Amino acid sequence: MAAPAHFVFDAGDHGEWAVERVIDVIGEGLPMAARLSMGPAAAVTARAVWCLRGFTSNIRYATGIELGQLAAATPPLGRPASTRAALIPIRKSDAWWALGQDERRAIMEERSGHVSRSLRHLPAVARKLFHSRDLGEPFDFLTWFEYPPDYADAFEGLVADLRASEEWRYVDREVDVRLARAG
Amino acid sequence: MAAPAHFVFDAGDHGEWAVERVIDVIGEGLPMAARLSMGPAAAVTARAVWCLRGFTSNIRYATGIELGQLAAATPPLGRPASTRAALIPIRKSDAWWALGQDERRAIMEERSGHVSRSLRHLPAVARKLFHSRDLGEPFDFLTWFEYPPDYADAFEGLVADLRASEEWRYVDREVDVRLARAG
Repeated sequence: MAAPAHFVFDAGDHGEWAVERVIDVIGEGLPMAARLSMGPAAAVTARAVWCLRGFTSNIRYATGIELGQLAAATPPLGRPASTRAALIPIRKSDAWWALGQDERRAIMEERSGHVSRSLRHLPAVARKLFHSRDLGEPFDFLTWFEYPPDYADAFEGLVADLRASEEWRYVDREVDVRLARAG
Repeated sequence: MAAPAHFVFDAGDHGEWAVERVIDVIGEGLPMAARLSMGPAAAVTARAVWCLRGFTSNIRYATGIELGQLAAATPPLGRPASTRAALIPIRKSDAWWALGQDERRAIMEERSGHVSRSLRHLPAVARKLFHSRDLGEPFDFLTWFEYPPDYADAFEGLVADLRASEEWRYVDREVDVRLARAG
């Protein structure tokens, strides 16, 4: 289990990812920018259009069995063929955060299939979750996905399935930033 | 569900709590200091002997039923008769953090009774949990307890029971700071 690491997503005029579109899905959106960089939290620039911070952490919902399945199937970030990416920041409602751990788990997995649906898209999609809520950030989670261009339609299917799930009734802000690896 | 709040425990020569003893329970200890203050994270002073940071967050293990029991019985901090306090920073092992959520819950509650044991000491003991691991701090959790002097023996019973539990086999650093309200 790696130690927590703090990252920043910095949207502006530089970075290895070209922003293709910024879709305001639920609630207040984010402005368009030309480029996006992701890196250690110290790397924020003053000229950012927006920047979002988050940290990797221990698993909060997956069981030991699911962890084993995820570990076996999860690819690394940075594969050369995965030239498309999505950064999807979400915030969940106060009602979500007031639920017990068992209730959140039941909604997320037993009734919404968050882990099992995601597993079906591995290893085509590489995914990394960053926690933001505890930093007082505007979103609770930042999820970063990388996939090859020919997997784009299948990836839209995953995103649509999750948005139609019971879990997503507790999402009160969501932005979907799509990117292509630059140069 | 209150938004996360960042706090700092600042041990040095000022603060509303007089440090009575610092007990190195497991692993590397912390030095003695005269006073301890707790407050919002911005309040750290340069002259601290040590300072530990943490944040309040959503519940990570309790069920909805347990949350209801805790909410009904949990007293506020700052009661005038509760002139004794304990600050118990702990760190858990990599083996703990590599477990699935279900496995950590089973060890913590089903086999160690962390919540049910604690409930039996409410409302005599007021308790607040701060998360530190995700900040890269030397401990994973800081737990703060306040209780009246005539409850001290019963409080020692709670601490001893938890230290004898299966959950504590995963604790690889623990310090126990005992305090009395000053002035």
